[in-house]
Amino acid sequence: MVDVAIIGAMGYAGKELLRLCLRHPEIRVVALTDLVDQPEPVSEQFPEFRGLTDLEIEPTDVERISAKAETIFLALPHKASQEYAGQFIRAGKRVFDLSADFRFASIETYEQTYGIEHKEKELAKSAVYGLAEINREKIKNAQLIAVPGCYPTGALLGILPIVTAGVALDSPIIIDSKSGVSGAGRKPTATTHFPECNESIMAYGVGQHRHQPEIQEKIGEASSKNAGDIRVVFTPHLTPMTRGILSTIYLQLTQDVTEQDIAQIFQERYENEFFIRLLPAGKFPATKNVTFTNFCDIGWKKVSERTLIVITAIDNLVKGASGQALQCFNICYNFPEQMGLI
Amino acid sequence: MVDVAIIGAMGYAGKELLRLCLRHPEIRVVALTDLVDQPEPVSEQFPEFRGLTDLEIEPTDVERISAKAETIFLALPHKASQEYAGQFIRAGKRVFDLSADFRFASIETYEQTYGIEHKEKELAKSAVYGLAEINREKIKNAQLIAVPGCYPTGALLGILPIVTAGVALDSPIIIDSKSGVSGAGRKPTATTHFPECNESIMAYGVGQHRHQPEIQEKIGEASSKNAGDIRVVFTPHLTPMTRGILSTIYLQLTQDVTEQDIAQIFQERYENEFFIRLLPAGKFPATKNVTFTNFCDIGWKKVSERTLIVITAIDNLVKGASGQALQCFNICYNFPEQMGLI
Amino acid sequence: MVDVAIIGAMGYAGKELLRLCLRHPEIRVVALTDLVDQPEPVSEQFPEFRGLTDLEIEPTDVERISAKAETIFLALPHKASQEYAGQFIRAGKRVFDLSADFRFASIETYEQTYGIEHKEKELAKSAVYGLAEINREKIKNAQLIAVPGCYPTGALLGILPIVTAGVALDSPIIIDSKSGVSGAGRKPTATTHFPECNESIMAYGVGQHRHQPEIQEKIGEASSKNAGDIRVVFTPHLTPMTRGILSTIYLQLTQDVTEQDIAQIFQERYENEFFIRLLPAGKFPATKNVTFTNFCDIGWKKVSERTLIVITAIDNLVKGASGQALQCFNICYNFPEQMGLI
Amino acid sequence: MVDVAIIGAMGYAGKELLRLCLRHPEIRVVALTDLVDQPEPVSEQFPEFRGLTDLEIEPTDVERISAKAETIFLALPHKASQEYAGQFIRAGKRVFDLSADFRFASIETYEQTYGIEHKEKELAKSAVYGLAEINREKIKNAQLIAVPGCYPTGALLGILPIVTAGVALDSPIIIDSKSGVSGAGRKPTATTHFPECNESIMAYGVGQHRHQPEIQEKIGEASSKNAGDIRVVFTPHLTPMTRGILSTIYLQLTQDVTEQDIAQIFQERYENEFFIRLLPAGKFPATKNVTFTNFCDIGWKKVSERTLIVITAIDNLVKGASGQALQCFNICYNFPEQMGLI
Repeated sequence: MVDVAIIGAMGYAGKELLRLCLRHPEIRVVALTDLVDQPEPVSEQFPEFRGLTDLEIEPTDVERISAKAETIFLALPHKASQEYAGQFIRAGKRVFDLSADFRFASIETYEQTYGIEHKEKELAKSAVYGLAEINREKIKNAQLIAVPGCYPTGALLGILPIVTAGVALDSPIIIDSKSGVSGAGRKPTATTHFPECNESIMAYGVGQHRHQPEIQEKIGEASSKNAGDIRVVFTPHLTPMTRGILSTIYLQLTQDVTEQDIAQIFQERYENEFFIRLLPAGKFPATKNVTFTNFCDIGWKKVSERTLIVITAIDNLVKGASGQALQCFNICYNFPEQMGLI
Repeated sequence: MVDVAIIGAMGYAGKELLRLCLRHPEIRVVALTDLVDQPEPVSEQFPEFRGLTDLEIEPTDVERISAKAETIFLALPHKASQEYAGQFIRAGKRVFDLSADFRFASIETYEQTYGIEHKEKELAKSAVYGLAEINREKIKNAQLIAVPGCYPTGALLGILPIVTAGVALDSPIIIDSKSGVSGAGRKPTATTHFPECNESIMAYGVGQHRHQPEIQEKIGEASSKNAGDIRVVFTPHLTPMTRGILSTIYLQLTQDVTEQDIAQIFQERYENEFFIRLLPAGKFPATKNVTFTNFCDIGWKKVSERTLIVITAIDNLVKGASGQALQCFNICYNFPEQMGLI
Repeated sequence: MVDVAIIGAMGYAGKELLRLCLRHPEIRVVALTDLVDQPEPVSEQFPEFRGLTDLEIEPTDVERISAKAETIFLALPHKASQEYAGQFIRAGKRVFDLSADFRFASIETYEQTYGIEHKEKELAKSAVYGLAEINREKIKNAQLIAVPGCYPTGALLGILPIVTAGVALDSPIIIDSKSGVSGAGRKPTATTHFPECNESIMAYGVGQHRHQPEIQEKIGEASSKNAGDIRVVFTPHLTPMTRGILSTIYLQLTQDVTEQDIAQIFQERYENEFFIRLLPAGKFPATKNVTFTNFCDIGWKKVSERTLIVITAIDNLVKGASGQALQCFNICYNFPEQMGLI
Repeated sequence: MVDVAIIGAMGYAGKELLRLCLRHPEIRVVALTDLVDQPEPVSEQFPEFRGLTDLEIEPTDVERISAKAETIFLALPHKASQEYAGQFIRAGKRVFDLSADFRFASIETYEQTYGIEHKEKELAKSAVYGLAEINREKIKNAQLIAVPGCYPTGALLGILPIVTAGVALDSPIIIDSKSGVSGAGRKPTATTHFPECNESIMAYGVGQHRHQPEIQEKIGEASSKNAGDIRVVFTPHLTPMTRGILSTIYLQLTQDVTEQDIAQIFQERYENEFFIRLLPAGKFPATKNVTFTNFCDIGWKKVSERTLIVITAIDNLVKGASGQALQCFNICYNFPEQMGLI
């Protein structure tokens, strides 16, 4: 049994973590914290937890939390995570960080993308990118796991096998993603006000969303052998639903690749991956089939001599955040990877 | 052609007024105002107006507006309306007030309900309650029209004929209303954040919603001859849709009333009312049939010896606010009542 | 470990049962059946099960199923259930029937309500109404459990404690319920076509829904000591969401009952009930807090001297159907009542 | 005043036509027809028309209709349209066909795409593709106008100016479209059943949707001077909303084109087009701003040296079908193009 704390329990990722942790047979949640003046029951914030837990959300006192918890989940915005990650790491804790703060190999890219100076540059070097299916071996022994962003998870799981196999042309990879509104966080805004986003779909952050450099960097690492300079065009859309991300990905192929080749590439890469479901030819994912689960469904079709469409679906809050964090947790602690996740 | 100004053009009622006014052949909108520091195109606030109007939203300068406009629509929150209504009335303007400030015959009830002192008590006495189908004659010559609340409109149109006919027992009239989220206004809140109200329904303001005393007072006036003391129990519900109010009303009848009697009561009361649609026996309203219109659909059924169910549907922003304001406007100016509303 | 079969696995209740059974540590699903010509993977019907089970849906062969399964869940429409329930019972199986066929104490009421002759009248007498919190003792030893309807579950859990306590006046109890569209079943219809029910709310079955006699009968049984003749007025509404039922219940009280009395009545009745969550004063349920759970949330308020509002929320497919069936299963098999349900 | 008949008044396009025609000051709807055995009020099919029209839907009797109507709107499925178009044309009527039957210049492409033989090949040659902003001059004198598909309208309005200007590279043009569910028609299906498409998004018809050849052909015609062989990759998505299509279009540019060049290209092409709204730099369309209108909103951004994103939004039932039909009607009859459409 592992004693864990969730730092940032009042956001959607924190709430989702709590929901999942309460079901995990080897996790005991010993603390929830957030920006509160004094402890208040988490069921006041989220009435769905009434009867399931008596835990309170308390202010974030690193010393106090460190005395209780062995493992820390940081479900904080970027920048805030940096401030806590180092403290908990230096207190000897294992940290799963759901923010962007430790996802980048290049500090420079991080600083440009988020517009702030990184205060834990040394620590950042030791962080492992927690895309479980891709980085499992490194995750096993990591002290600091940087859980990927929601969009990057859905995009990379569909793209990396193709790029790694060396069959993607040096032409922009287009990622057209559609996300549920919970992806925008729990803070009410004009954009996420029900009458404004209900019955409407729109693109946002066109050409400048912060997840684009994250996707770009990870594809670059995977394709290093290709000497190619694969660029990514990423367009997220706000979709009138609460959960789920569908990513429709357009890749240009080197000419001699068949649809069967593609199937084989995915098979080889993912055949033992419980949480990746490869759909049979002619089937494509719908987000409803993955919401409230840690699955990533993948379908694909070669629609012309050179164009491959890969479509992936995940739950942004589970596989795109808290579920993936728990999957990494299970890897680190040698628990079965599905534990608490089905 | 009447020159009108809309005070409070950045809320949903103001926006809906503008949408309707732009279609009205006898209205020229000469000014839009709201809490802005300097003029900005209304199409910045509401991109749907791009190409339809070049109007700007400007700060509310009573003198300046009075010089341009003959008629004023106040689409302001209560309290703010009081501050402007008097000024515009004293400047000789006709005022259609969409707030609660002038809806009550009893100032005392108003002050208790809204928890503030009324600053225009004299003016309030002269205001006419703008429920067009009920108060048409008084509206004709009114200088200050208090447009009813959205819930009261749907409830009263279903209840008043029954109560006036003297066939409702002295037992609580239960009004169970379901409203779209736009009824909560344009300001983002935790309650109206998409992930919080999507895929969920809940009651709110149970037993203490501000529209209950408004409904109560108007029913009391209508039933004065009954010497009865009809009480109202009103429960509004936040429903995962943008527009529309469905009110399911439960009345206890004096025993000798048949369903045919009820049909006749409604027929006699509403047979010449264009905006009231009485549904045939066995049919009941759905809000989708009235959204974006000024109609109120009414269906009913006697479900036991004494219990009558009346169900009404309106668009909260049209018949429940801006459309009804325009209907009153048409009455005042002797335009056909449907002008600009179909 | 109990071997179970789900008869009617292609409807929403059957699917939900499978979802829950796959998580239940003491259940092994050994067969799924429905109206299919030949076996097909359940993941073809419901892609969300891909990777979670290899089970196939097969034709319903009672002998074959009886050889494999110890317990039978019938997730069939009424009438179809009758045909199978007797066969499985006579084969010595325990049967949990989710249809209406065995819910009524009065066969006459059943036959009037459903317009067909009951073919298993003797068997019907032995059936136990599976409202777990109310009938736990009888459920324990029952061979045939009639799982309550979705609307009756939400309504009865809110009403029965009040009626049993003898504080409800002999005046109609009004139940105004709002249900998600999954309650209408899986078969596409004009009414449940997305563009027809999205962005709209409407009442249906006004005064004649089949769940009204079920509610009525169970209240009558509970209130027998009152000699009262409590009538029920029940109005269901189709609400633009997938899951959840909110029931707003209006009761007239005998005069000397305070809100504290009501709180005490609920407390005494439900204090040890895990799946009933009594909300503190001033709080009311929202369906989002119970969807995908077996909880029933209950809030209440006395809004006038005599009128009590009780509001309940359940997930129509879980506590209103499959979850409740499993709760009864746990009771019968002496498993902890929450097993597989949290 | 023009007397018109709507053939196929029971589908969504027919209903939308009626809604718009009832507001058009120069149109008198003299007949509605569909597959009915005997006349029935249109308000039985669509209760929203109650009080607005007494028209009945009658069986389609070409002779009878021709005696009454001068102009015919065919709102029928493909194939059915062919059967009527010829008859009405030969009876001297002007025909606006909303089906795919007369949209293609190449009969061969049509026959391949729709899998049937075309029975009016000669007539097809005389048909004019009713994309108003592009074909206005030809529409003016056409007898048979083939109103474009909903997806092609949104896609072509964004693509044609770029292609015509010769700045699009010979590389696939990717069109990722998101449509509301009304685009699937009025017939209930498993896919459009509320619980199946609510809270979910998915692609469909990947690489083989029937609108792809239509888009392809029209782009080919426009780019003939380029000698290029521009291919289109089109992926439609079913989005959980009733109305609206957002098309996110990815084009590869010849290298020396700036974002200002693009702006100028759009400006020059559309500056006098009332129904095309070019958004300022940094702004992108949301479908909510165009629903219930005939507008097409267009935004764009150059996101890399070669990649241009163009995003368009239309209402699939208005600009994507019935509104565009009326716009063509206005052109043919020399009415102001906006008449009845704002």
